[in-house]
Amino acid sequence: MTVDALAAAVREVLGPDQIITDRSRLRTYECDGLTHYRVVPGIVLLPRTAAQCAAVVRACVAHGVPFVARGSGTGLSGGALPHADGALIVTSQLRSIVEMAPQDERAVLEPGVINLQVSRAANPHGYYYAPDPSSQQICSIGGNVAENSGGAHCLKYGFTANHVTGLQIVTPDGDLVRLGGRAPDAPGYDLLGAFVGSEGTLGIATEVTVRLVRLPETVRTLLAAFAGTDEAGAATSAIIAAGVVPAAVEMMDALAIEAAEAAVHCGYPEGAGAVLIVELDGPAAEVDAQFAAVEQFCRRHGAFEIRIAADDAERALFWKGRKSAFAAVGRISPDYIVQDGVIPRTALPQVLTRIGELAREHGVRVANVFHAGDGNLHPLVLFDEAVAGQAERAEAVSGAILDICVEHGGSITGEHGVGVDKAKHLPRMYSEEDLDTMQLVRCAFDPRGLSNPGKVFPTPRLCGEVPGRRKGPNPWHDAGVEVF
Amino acid sequence: MTVDALAAAVREVLGPDQIITDRSRLRTYECDGLTHYRVVPGIVLLPRTAAQCAAVVRACVAHGVPFVARGSGTGLSGGALPHADGALIVTSQLRSIVEMAPQDERAVLEPGVINLQVSRAANPHGYYYAPDPSSQQICSIGGNVAENSGGAHCLKYGFTANHVTGLQIVTPDGDLVRLGGRAPDAPGYDLLGAFVGSEGTLGIATEVTVRLVRLPETVRTLLAAFAGTDEAGAATSAIIAAGVVPAAVEMMDALAIEAAEAAVHCGYPEGAGAVLIVELDGPAAEVDAQFAAVEQFCRRHGAFEIRIAADDAERALFWKGRKSAFAAVGRISPDYIVQDGVIPRTALPQVLTRIGELAREHGVRVANVFHAGDGNLHPLVLFDEAVAGQAERAEAVSGAILDICVEHGGSITGEHGVGVDKAKHLPRMYSEEDLDTMQLVRCAFDPRGLSNPGKVFPTPRLCGEVPGRRKGPNPWHDAGVEVF
Repeated sequence: MTVDALAAAVREVLGPDQIITDRSRLRTYECDGLTHYRVVPGIVLLPRTAAQCAAVVRACVAHGVPFVARGSGTGLSGGALPHADGALIVTSQLRSIVEMAPQDERAVLEPGVINLQVSRAANPHGYYYAPDPSSQQICSIGGNVAENSGGAHCLKYGFTANHVTGLQIVTPDGDLVRLGGRAPDAPGYDLLGAFVGSEGTLGIATEVTVRLVRLPETVRTLLAAFAGTDEAGAATSAIIAAGVVPAAVEMMDALAIEAAEAAVHCGYPEGAGAVLIVELDGPAAEVDAQFAAVEQFCRRHGAFEIRIAADDAERALFWKGRKSAFAAVGRISPDYIVQDGVIPRTALPQVLTRIGELAREHGVRVANVFHAGDGNLHPLVLFDEAVAGQAERAEAVSGAILDICVEHGGSITGEHGVGVDKAKHLPRMYSEEDLDTMQLVRCAFDPRGLSNPGKVFPTPRLCGEVPGRRKGPNPWHDAGVEVF
Repeated sequence: MTVDALAAAVREVLGPDQIITDRSRLRTYECDGLTHYRVVPGIVLLPRTAAQCAAVVRACVAHGVPFVARGSGTGLSGGALPHADGALIVTSQLRSIVEMAPQDERAVLEPGVINLQVSRAANPHGYYYAPDPSSQQICSIGGNVAENSGGAHCLKYGFTANHVTGLQIVTPDGDLVRLGGRAPDAPGYDLLGAFVGSEGTLGIATEVTVRLVRLPETVRTLLAAFAGTDEAGAATSAIIAAGVVPAAVEMMDALAIEAAEAAVHCGYPEGAGAVLIVELDGPAAEVDAQFAAVEQFCRRHGAFEIRIAADDAERALFWKGRKSAFAAVGRISPDYIVQDGVIPRTALPQVLTRIGELAREHGVRVANVFHAGDGNLHPLVLFDEAVAGQAERAEAVSGAILDICVEHGGSITGEHGVGVDKAKHLPRMYSEEDLDTMQLVRCAFDPRGLSNPGKVFPTPRLCGEVPGRRKGPNPWHDAGVEVF
């Protein structure tokens, strides 16, 4: 068996504690944060250095074994779903902060470093790392690079792609190469940008150089309660239209609030059909002036209660409800799908109305928790697996939400990635020619199709084929993957 | 002759006024802004639509004719240098603003639209287009995309790559495809990012969707005079270290000031060894508070005179000296090389000192005019072609400056691109494996090597070759190009 041959080969570069072949231990790695797709990997390998990582990839190439990279396994699109006959290369042992260089506003990190750790290390120097996915306490920088992770504050600060200036990667051939550097921009193709968000299909990052951002002089946070999402949406539009760029503008609708209250007792205003959390950061003079404007916009658009965080503790309480919302939905529904789509901010009211209609038509409930400021929706479609037909209806609603996003000029994913889950939806946005053009890059880097195969693209291109386009469904849906 | 066959073929899609074959008219296109490389193109084609542009590229492919795209021809690295046996595809006839959508903070543009026109069209809606190369009155958006153009304000607002969210391109195969869209981020590979700055080697942009930025509430500009660049550099570092992000921080040294005075009589303070122009923009409350801090930092680091622009006219005068500096150098030297490199801001004092030593050792003068805030140097190396040996010494100094930049963790180009001029320098930054990895993308998109051949890469890869690496000099330097 090829995986056995691979196991023998990697024993030359890895210690016995870096190789997992025992079935019960392999099962630990069968899924990432998208738990309804599960595949037990053929073998798990835990390199400790970039050189080991490159050697492992070369061994996979030599034995024709597909490989999947995994960080902390918190991804929500199944990007780190293993391959049954393949290797899962876990980068969490590459966990050193190589260098903190606050004077140049840079940090050099191994991929297994935890997102929040970077800010903790930078804070004493007056800096932090801006991209803040909800999973920031456990997700790794390598995973953030693979998925181009966002977070509540990417409205003002941008995605992971806006904060990575250099990478060392192992290519799908097993070469160690450098892309970019410390300078804000490097000559030649921006392969750095193409690699960030490539979801493991172009290789594995073994070192990541990131920007550090100055800690703001002031942070002020407000929670505003509205009768419904229309009013909260109008307030959001008014804030942005006035030229204010808050660090974050987050919205939760009635159902999301109900879930958060049940789970963490965040004490949001009673009777709210929607709440907005607006956070401003920056120089105190600016924040103070803009904060007053934000408050006015909220009142003018119907906010019936506004609370201003008096201190860090109250601010943390505002965020607690928001950050716990996904998990909290488990309190009010046995099962749910976390959807992720983007729309132009100006389309917010129409799109929320359409989602509501869609939910009623299909007899399912949808809770909305989202980054309102940048139009990044996270509808949570609730269902009960035990009730016949509900899962299918929830799946249909979830898919239809993406159609609505695309119709309004948006996108099928904002920050969770395509992975295995959304590959089938990619043709909603791109023509066959567009997708073939993307696959030119895939085939150039990975002509054998060994680096995270079956992810991102709906119809994998056989890299030998020139323009003859192979058609077929996502291989995961007809290749024995347990879909829960 | 293949160019004749191409001319016959394109007559089916282009009118006679869109095809130039007359030698004297072809000569108009023999160079771009980098005037010491000149090649008369085989034919010039002027498509008026994206479909015509695609048809022209397909005709080039069918006849095996290399093609080079050109916008306004203001580039400073020879990226639009024609091919003697090839077609020059000029995009300046594609010059419509397709859509202004200020409510979504987007504009959709044809590639021939002039940079400044975008801001002019957006201004009445309260928006502008942020990237502002010095040539903004004549350079085109298509050329900005090809070169990933910067400008004085990219310290705060970023490069062209940070402002393009969608493209329609003609691939080197002649397919029209879409990359990205209106949403801030699109699923799949970020080919948009790889295309922006690819200097015409991955195809031709036929439609560009850009972000519009809100006009700031206030702009305030200060001019500070120092004894020398050390003091001005220290003031720059202090401003940034305090967490202030000005819209621009520009520095000119004594020689650059002398040139500007001779040319435009900008009336900068007498006796200045260096001047800083610092511009802050944003909410009035923030700008006022930070402006006071900037003034203090300048005084604390030795500014002996500080002028604050009282109105737009005075602000324009401050900028006039800076913006005219490159051309002004012609007043004090018959010939000069405009260099472009990047260094970490913290290395500014050491690097300026080394450049000064280098100039003295080689007996040439170097004027420094640059974006101090982001460490983007533009040393102007002065020489006299008529004095034997001076051109060679100037070239040697100019090249050595790039070595200094790379040694200090910087890059061989900040915003002018690699083009034909710096291809030879790329191995100073990248290993052979790094460059081969970039060429994977080139070969995937352009396996025939017809799209702007001989640019960017020092050793073009024959795309059939798998890893056997062909070695050789830049083909421009041994293929009959007139190098002036």
